[in-house]
Amino acid sequence: MKVDLNCDMGESFGNYSLGFDEEMMEFISSANIACGYHAGDPHVMRKTVEWAKASGTGVGAHPGFPDLIGFGRRHLKVTPEEVKDYITYQMGALREFARASGLTIQHCKPHGALYMMAMEDEKLARAFLEAVAEADDKMIVFALNNSAVVQQGEVMGVPVAKEGYADRQHTKDGSIVLTRKSAMVEDNEVAAERVVRMVKEGKVTTHQDEEASITVDTVCIHGDTPNSLDLVKAITDALKRENISITSVKDVLGV
Amino acid sequence: MKVDLNCDMGESFGNYSLGFDEEMMEFISSANIACGYHAGDPHVMRKTVEWAKASGTGVGAHPGFPDLIGFGRRHLKVTPEEVKDYITYQMGALREFARASGLTIQHCKPHGALYMMAMEDEKLARAFLEAVAEADDKMIVFALNNSAVVQQGEVMGVPVAKEGYADRQHTKDGSIVLTRKSAMVEDNEVAAERVVRMVKEGKVTTHQDEEASITVDTVCIHGDTPNSLDLVKAITDALKRENISITSVKDVLGV
Amino acid sequence: MKVDLNCDMGESFGNYSLGFDEEMMEFISSANIACGYHAGDPHVMRKTVEWAKASGTGVGAHPGFPDLIGFGRRHLKVTPEEVKDYITYQMGALREFARASGLTIQHCKPHGALYMMAMEDEKLARAFLEAVAEADDKMIVFALNNSAVVQQGEVMGVPVAKEGYADRQHTKDGSIVLTRKSAMVEDNEVAAERVVRMVKEGKVTTHQDEEASITVDTVCIHGDTPNSLDLVKAITDALKRENISITSVKDVLGV
Amino acid sequence: MKVDLNCDMGESFGNYSLGFDEEMMEFISSANIACGYHAGDPHVMRKTVEWAKASGTGVGAHPGFPDLIGFGRRHLKVTPEEVKDYITYQMGALREFARASGLTIQHCKPHGALYMMAMEDEKLARAFLEAVAEADDKMIVFALNNSAVVQQGEVMGVPVAKEGYADRQHTKDGSIVLTRKSAMVEDNEVAAERVVRMVKEGKVTTHQDEEASITVDTVCIHGDTPNSLDLVKAITDALKRENISITSVKDVLGV
Repeated sequence: MKVDLNCDMGESFGNYSLGFDEEMMEFISSANIACGYHAGDPHVMRKTVEWAKASGTGVGAHPGFPDLIGFGRRHLKVTPEEVKDYITYQMGALREFARASGLTIQHCKPHGALYMMAMEDEKLARAFLEAVAEADDKMIVFALNNSAVVQQGEVMGVPVAKEGYADRQHTKDGSIVLTRKSAMVEDNEVAAERVVRMVKEGKVTTHQDEEASITVDTVCIHGDTPNSLDLVKAITDALKRENISITSVKDVLGV
Repeated sequence: MKVDLNCDMGESFGNYSLGFDEEMMEFISSANIACGYHAGDPHVMRKTVEWAKASGTGVGAHPGFPDLIGFGRRHLKVTPEEVKDYITYQMGALREFARASGLTIQHCKPHGALYMMAMEDEKLARAFLEAVAEADDKMIVFALNNSAVVQQGEVMGVPVAKEGYADRQHTKDGSIVLTRKSAMVEDNEVAAERVVRMVKEGKVTTHQDEEASITVDTVCIHGDTPNSLDLVKAITDALKRENISITSVKDVLGV
Repeated sequence: MKVDLNCDMGESFGNYSLGFDEEMMEFISSANIACGYHAGDPHVMRKTVEWAKASGTGVGAHPGFPDLIGFGRRHLKVTPEEVKDYITYQMGALREFARASGLTIQHCKPHGALYMMAMEDEKLARAFLEAVAEADDKMIVFALNNSAVVQQGEVMGVPVAKEGYADRQHTKDGSIVLTRKSAMVEDNEVAAERVVRMVKEGKVTTHQDEEASITVDTVCIHGDTPNSLDLVKAITDALKRENISITSVKDVLGV
Repeated sequence: MKVDLNCDMGESFGNYSLGFDEEMMEFISSANIACGYHAGDPHVMRKTVEWAKASGTGVGAHPGFPDLIGFGRRHLKVTPEEVKDYITYQMGALREFARASGLTIQHCKPHGALYMMAMEDEKLARAFLEAVAEADDKMIVFALNNSAVVQQGEVMGVPVAKEGYADRQHTKDGSIVLTRKSAMVEDNEVAAERVVRMVKEGKVTTHQDEEASITVDTVCIHGDTPNSLDLVKAITDALKRENISITSVKDVLGV
């Protein structure tokens, strides 16, 4: 058994530092690197790509809304054309830093409100997938189980990795609960066991204590909480104990 | 005889419209497309690239300082690393729109204060050239005669097109006078004759009424003045009368 | 009979010019001056306040969302605290320019999506009104008939001027239709007669050809369309013919 | 003997946290609060003003260049008009939050490159002082010994508090050394003794080990270093041991 671990990276900006990117890199297999809209700047992007290269972590674009003050977390009523253009812009910017390091972009995962809106809205999902497909028809997108992105990805032939969250509550339909406080899984061991169960059994207990089926090609870990390094260690330890290998998402999907 | 004509393009932003890009495209052979820092946005970039494609105009990146309020025209005390990162970011973003249209980026010309600072400072010139060379070793840079970019471009093996300005005053050493009011050549026919003389004779009369030698592989026309369409028509007519063909900068340089 | 005429002003930004502010000032009695978030910059703000002073036009704050690329027209999922803080910030900035010219801020009218959201959401309406009341308990707010701002303004004791639109279609409940193309009243004389009828009869024909009652203390004219000067002239001429005087909104409200 | 202690505050932004503002407030007597250009946002500004109020700390505006990515630390070639407009805008924004808390703005101290440029350039110094004087003729400005601001402040009748730095090296002429690494005074006790000597003896040892005279009405402490709370405690303890009271800058200047 195998699974990919992904984490948001490169979300520092100018004088502001966020997360433990360099330390986190060795534990994860996919880095979602912010592209300068909701977070990140050109210097941070170059450095984060170099850290990913040093640790052999897959480089992914993590585009967001042009809302630095809101960290890309606020829904913004955008058109599909705006979604497509914003993703093309940010993906291209990151891709140039990847190329400068001799790397390609492995995957694309939108950030925050852009992610949630693409999951729920078919037109925005298609706009996101078009931007990715135009850039590289081998690029993998990350998406929630049963989301519009999963559905449209199949129609459009874009490879999709299905995602579970280590430290967020899931809903019955495969989505996640965003209200940040109550929706956190705060105990690292509990979170780690949840991850193991998602991977081994394809099951997760929802925020309403129901059982739900879930497919997890990749597991998302948040890197901007004070205990994120402890969390990722708990998860990688638990996966090792179960002989589940953490590996490239390409390998997981067999593409 | 032949020469390339270049013009700044894609400098609209959101609700703000600037220039006559679509109309201008048919007259010029190289479009310097803004990349979202000093001007331009993702939607404008996509549209401008499509116009360039429709008219067969060469697509160039036109990166600037992150100073939208100052339109990238104010000197900003940056490090070579900042220059390199800013150019890599913006060039990558534009490149993705070019790729989506099936095009490559032909050239790179920085904007405003970034352009002038790279021309004058050897370290910033190298940073600019490194960003370009990392992206594509066939990419051409545009630079003023006798500038640090010309000198460092030779050292680093980056192809450089030497540039004259249709509507700006030149100095004896090949630079241009930026004080905008007094430095403008306001009569279109005078500007056109200056361009012809630069190309045919390699001569220009400086702002102090001296004769200076100048090599012009490409001539820059500003597209954001009310009379810029008249200016470009006057220039293209004058060049035609002299049997000087307006052609791709690659063709001019023979690369 | 009397009415106030208001127009959005100061929406230029840096190198980008928008509207005919200086010419428009003499026709209107209330200027809604952008405050640097959705449009406007410090230089534009100072200049626009000075134009308002020269023509005796009332100065109002026109705060918007921090979304320059979308010109503040896109709904952004904000909290009441964010609305309040954004308005306090922008109003204070404008107020300082007004003070430097020896003026006070007469009114506050939010822009675009912030305006529409405050009209429809009671909590956002209260946040808007709190920011205004904290700043100056004499400051007037502009609002659509029957909106949450009108209702909460009464509860909180904030003076509200009810607003009609010269060049937008109204709905039965006093709101306006924002889909820009189809919702425009494009004939200036038709728009002028609509304004007269709103003021004299308190009636407007809705976008669905129904009759609706409307109270108009102030009429909004858009200043960023190519024909806005013709529109405002047609309206002021029509009002004069009917002996309706265009006057300060304070005078209209009797405060 | 008495002295004012000032510290930069409110430099968090959106999701990014910087400094120990709430804890620092009780040690200092003047808070320089960022105004949203180089750092800070409306929510941070409101909160920081409230903390200042709770601790009785004087509220000051800390305007900077519109260069969030560079934290306002990079020289930007601006005109005096731009300096004046930027300061008026930011001061007004902060003033509105102060008013909402029932406070007035006590002082104004520009940030980073704007501070250094105003200290060195007479025209920029005057522009800064004009913005302050227009806002409130009782407002105090903070400035380096022998700077253009001190000179022009005398000419224009703007009260100026002369400033020393606890943790930066000084030059012979009263300026400070900005090259951050080598210019830091890293030992807290050494810094504290320097402060005591500046206040008691009016002397400081320069970065070149010379003696220089210095007048310190106020001492600046940087709040964004990991050890800033230890530093401020060392300084306040040392001042107490010498019976030097830390008090309002108005009290120090006797205005």
